[in-house]
Order: sequence, then C-alpha cells, then structure tokens
Amino acid sequence: MIYLDNAATTYPKPEAVYLEMDKVNRFLAVNAGRGSYKRARDASKLIVDTKDRLRELVHANMSTSIVFSPSVTIAMNQIVHGLNLRENAIVYVSPYEHNAVARTIHQLSKNKKIFIKELPINEETLAIDIERTRYEFSKDKPNAIFCTHVSNVTGYILPVEEVFEEGKRYNSINVLDAAQSIGLLPMNVALLKADFIAFAGHKTLYGPFGIGGFINVAGIKLSEFITGGTGSDSLNLNMPHDNESKYEASSINIVAVAGLNAALKKLNQSEIWEHEIELTHYLVERLRQIRGIHMYLPVEKNKHIGILSFVVKDMRSDEVGMILDEDFDIAVRTGYHCAPFIHKYLKDKNSSGTVRIGLSQFSTIEDIDALVSALKQLEE
Amino acid sequence: MIYLDNAATTYPKPEAVYLEMDKVNRFLAVNAGRGSYKRARDASKLIVDTKDRLRELVHANMSTSIVFSPSVTIAMNQIVHGLNLRENAIVYVSPYEHNAVARTIHQLSKNKKIFIKELPINEETLAIDIERTRYEFSKDKPNAIFCTHVSNVTGYILPVEEVFEEGKRYNSINVLDAAQSIGLLPMNVALLKADFIAFAGHKTLYGPFGIGGFINVAGIKLSEFITGGTGSDSLNLNMPHDNESKYEASSINIVAVAGLNAALKKLNQSEIWEHEIELTHYLVERLRQIRGIHMYLPVEKNKHIGILSFVVKDMRSDEVGMILDEDFDIAVRTGYHCAPFIHKYLKDKNSSGTVRIGLSQFSTIEDIDALVSALKQLEE
Repeated sequence: MIYLDNAATTYPKPEAVYLEMDKVNRFLAVNAGRGSYKRARDASKLIVDTKDRLRELVHANMSTSIVFSPSVTIAMNQIVHGLNLRENAIVYVSPYEHNAVARTIHQLSKNKKIFIKELPINEETLAIDIERTRYEFSKDKPNAIFCTHVSNVTGYILPVEEVFEEGKRYNSINVLDAAQSIGLLPMNVALLKADFIAFAGHKTLYGPFGIGGFINVAGIKLSEFITGGTGSDSLNLNMPHDNESKYEASSINIVAVAGLNAALKKLNQSEIWEHEIELTHYLVERLRQIRGIHMYLPVEKNKHIGILSFVVKDMRSDEVGMILDEDFDIAVRTGYHCAPFIHKYLKDKNSSGTVRIGLSQFSTIEDIDALVSALKQLEE
Repeated sequence: MIYLDNAATTYPKPEAVYLEMDKVNRFLAVNAGRGSYKRARDASKLIVDTKDRLRELVHANMSTSIVFSPSVTIAMNQIVHGLNLRENAIVYVSPYEHNAVARTIHQLSKNKKIFIKELPINEETLAIDIERTRYEFSKDKPNAIFCTHVSNVTGYILPVEEVFEEGKRYNSINVLDAAQSIGLLPMNVALLKADFIAFAGHKTLYGPFGIGGFINVAGIKLSEFITGGTGSDSLNLNMPHDNESKYEASSINIVAVAGLNAALKKLNQSEIWEHEIELTHYLVERLRQIRGIHMYLPVEKNKHIGILSFVVKDMRSDEVGMILDEDFDIAVRTGYHCAPFIHKYLKDKNSSGTVRIGLSQFSTIEDIDALVSALKQLEE
C-alpha cells in the first residue's frame, strides 16, 4: 500500500512509538497517581515529561498549562463550551475550519445567542483577505476567533499571526486549531498571539490515537465541560481548581501518552518541514503535467504544505479514490474532509468533494511518482 | 510488584491484548472509514466486530446500538447531558456513584433545575433499602435513575434489577454504570431493565485505556454532546442522525478497539466470576484474622466481588498504602476512590478514606497471602 492519507492520521509512526507503547502497555499501564505506588508515580512522571516536551516544541514557558484530552475534538469542545461567551458575542471562524470547530460552535449557538461570522477570503486565490478582515473586525468586533493553522483540505497555511494580532486589538480570545501544523510548522507561542492551541497527537506529531489536548497559553479559566473522577479532591462535587486536572476527568491513557512521548523524542520539526515542503512542490509540479486535474493551490508556494486537494475533470472524487485503491493500492481520502464551509469556494460539489493527498515525513518521491503514474492511466 | 489496584485498571491484560494492539498499531492504525481504501475498511470491520462481541456478551439484540467513547466518563457525560431531562425532573442516584455520575449530574444541575435524590441505604448493612426505595419512588416519582452495578469502593453488588424494575413503574430512564461489572457479572439486557449501560474497556473487560462507551438498550435518542467530524455528511453542521455515529465524533482509537477486541475473544465471564468470588471470600477470611482491621462488607457474601475496602485502626489509609508500597512492593489504592457520597456511611474520614484492594482474573492466593502477611507486620 502507498499511504497518502496522512492528513487523517500519520502512518506509519516512528518505530520508537510502537516499541514504547508496547513496553508501557506491558509494564506501566496503571492509573497514574502522584500519591500512590511506584508505578503509578512513574506513570505520572511520564505525563509530566510529555507535557514538558510539548512546551519545549512550541517555546512555551515551563509553567504554561497543557491539558491532555483523548482527542483534539474533545479539546476543542472543552474550549468552545468552556469559554463562557456572553450573549450576543461575535465569533469569527475561518472558512477552513474542521467540524470539530464548525459543528461545535453551531452546537453552542443552539443554546446561546451568538453571532458566527466567517473570516473573509479572496475567492480567486482562496487566501484569507487580511484587509477585509481588518474592516470586518472594526465593524463587528471579535469576541473570539477560531482559526485553523493549516487547512486539512488544501494544505494552505493561514495567516494566523496577522488575524490573531488584529483580533487582539479588540481583546478577542484567539483559538488556534493546530491539528495539522504542530510539529510540522515552527511554532512559538510568544509570536502566535493565540490564547489556546488545540492539538492532536496522532497527526503531525506522529503519536498514536487517543491523545490530544490544548495549550492554555494565556491561562484563561474555562468552565467545566467533561466532569468525572480526577483521583483528587473526590468528595468535592466540583472539579478541582487547578488549570490542568480541572479539564482532565477520567484515567489518562498512559499508553497513548507513552507513544506521544516517544514521538516527541524523535520529532525534528525543521527537518520534517524541509522534507515535506520539497515533496509538496514536487507533487504540485508533477500533477501540473496531467491534463484534467484541477488543484487548489495558494498563490505563494510556501504557503502550502503537506496536504493537497484536487479534482479530476468529469469524474467524481470517490470514483478516483476507488480506482487508486483497487487498481493501484494507493490510499487517499476523498470527499469533504469534515470541513463544511470551504467547499462553496472550492466549487467542488459536482465532483462530490476533492481527492486529498496527505504527506508525512515518511512519504517519498517514489510514492508521488506512483500516484502520478496511476493518475495518468486514469486520464487515458 | 504485587498489583492489587485492579479496580482502577486491570493489569496485566491477557497477552493477546498486547500482541493485537502492537499488530494493529503497525498494520491497521488508519482512520476507519467504510467508503475508503482497504485498510480503512478493515479498521471499520474491526469496530463492527468488537461491537458485535459486546452485544453477545450482554445478550443484546444484534441491532442494539453501541456507541464507542474514549472512556466511560465521556460516555456518562454524553448520557447525562444528552437525556434532555425536563425542568424539575427528579433524578435518583445511588450513594455508591462514582464522580463520572455524581459530578456530571451536579454539573447538569447548575444549568437546569433538577432534583437529585439519593437511593436510600440501610446504614448498618450499607445495602440499598428496596422497601424505602419503593416508598420514595411513590412519593417522588423518578424521571431518571443512575445506579452503579458494583461499587468501586466496596465491591458491593447493588440490586439494580429491583431498583430499575421499580423505576420502570414510573417510566424512569435507567442508567447502569457497569464500569466494574461488565465481563465479571453475568449480564442480560433483557433482565436488567437498564436503558443505558455505560462501560469501560480497561477494567473488568481487560481491554486497554482509551475505549469505553455505552449500550443504548432502548434506542433512546440523546441530544448531541461532543460534536466534530464523523467522516460522513460533512457539509451538515449537525451530527448525523443514526444512533451510533451521532455520538462518535472524531477518529475512533482503532488500536484501543483492537485491544478490546482481543480481550473480548479471551474473556470467559463465568470462569472469571468463579475465580474472583472464591478469592474475595478467601481475602475476607484472611483479613478477619487481623485485629484492628475494619472491613466494609455486605451481609450476603455473594453480594460482593472483586473489590474490598478496609480501614486500619489508628492509621491513616494513605500511610497504610505507603507502607505496603515501600516496604512490601504491594500496590493498592487509598482514599476516597472518586466516590463522593458513600463515605458519610462508611464513616472513614478519620482514616482519610479506605484502603482498597482490587482483584482480577490474574490475582492469586499468593498475592493475598503476601498482603495479609504485610498487614500483620503493620499490626506489630
């Protein structure tokens, strides 16, 4: 199998991830707890160490709180519902948001009157229009902004720094969806102006399923969302007050944490970036040679990494995916990719969405050549 | 290490669980999806097969919906917040509830006026008082009942069938917390009168962390709680309608599912029950011989399985735990065990909670002898 569905989940992981998960499964898969027996304390230490490695990766202060959740989706739900937005709050979302944001804010709007606005984009270039964003913010001042860092559909790198900086002029709370960027793009919390950074362990960090979370850069208190046991303060019907365990109800998945820990030890962000930007350029160049393929590309070629979407003239994208799978054993993802807003600009509904290629640090020139050769046969 | 903290998580797991997790991690850890490439379809099949095995275990109809969540806590949050209880609803909880229920219903009561009542217990025997329950129900008719099957503090088997049957006279919605019972006690959904059965994968089922869920026995529609991508119907800002994927936002942790699948293949409920009931009796008999130990036991000895709590005269429970850990390498859990209500009846606050022994199918007579010998030295 040639695996090009890395935007869904990176596969494979570094060998160390598999080894460490199996080891911890066998020797340390107990309920972490500071005050308990030795292995429970060791499990706690592994959690602390993993958070420290994440802080280092994003150049966060060592006192910055990081909350582990079973997935970035749950982390995003905690943020959206925990923010306690006031009635009539104005919430901006980028048109590139994933349903973890889009559906969750929609869900919030069922119980509370808020105004949801899309960040304006240039319909030609598909880029966020910063000028119009500035204008919109001055007219309808943002209380919160949700913006993804890298589009899970097109691989476009959004200008989050500019958008968030502009939002901060109105004291907006800025939430970054880093599911497709953490570990791939350089990230420095001091420059990003994000108050929350939500992340998935199993994508660009090369960890396993079962672990994600958020970095609470500004230390903003959220209200409780998921409640349950915390192994502390058990007689209190409210969750504990501290800025991490308050949002970490239930046993932490220590095996997944171990996988993420091993992944972080191996992660070399700048090397991965270099490899993927090069492959992305190569992919674009090769696909340009095939007639009938329309790609969704940003104007600047370095504003695009790791993910690429295209449609094939006169074919449904799921058909293309099926042929790639059945005839060539190439795994891609087709459809709308859980991103509900962007397709009105991509105008891809006639093809039932796009064919999406997701690269990883383990993708090769040969993988791309195989894809291109398959697509050329499709054309004939 | 002698591991007696199996009520927190069973450890070790059957060897097949480790092997299968490692295998699926290496060969099938992709994003499950019916319409995609072969491995994604194989991942989907594994999920379906695991749910079928669970249905079989509880003698559910093969069309009964089972929802996977990353933990029983999240499953319980989905149920509590999804039930759409009306204003002024009367909700009964047993005094043995875990914080996954207790804190979550408390959380619900912050946003909606509901009346939370405890099922009455006999303060002498610590048993649920069915007569008084009947009376209370006739006075304050239950709209919903939350009852744990086996206490995670004392191992007491609650009379859930009677309580739920009584509740059904008033059309209550019955929710069973089976975290400590599924796989250990025989379970037949037709006899239980539970509408929802919430379960953890990593306890009495011998699966890994990262997978739990609920069985929706009666097919009751819940409102959305956690929202996000479902890999289907992406352009719709509401979650899909069907009774499983509606509650399964975000990528399913296929590696955890694989572990649970392997665990279910190995699980022999009646054998485990027999082994644990025997060990529980043996443990009780041996602990009776030690002066200064007070155990919390039900009157009928078969109403108690796998878990046992005690206090040691004139000692704090955390001290006992520390000595067992440091001097004898015996792992137990001490404190309040995330169960906020029951301690007023156990009257264990002077000892800062109890010392809890949790057994598993892999616990042995020798483990218990080692514990007893350590506790005897403590006495001296």
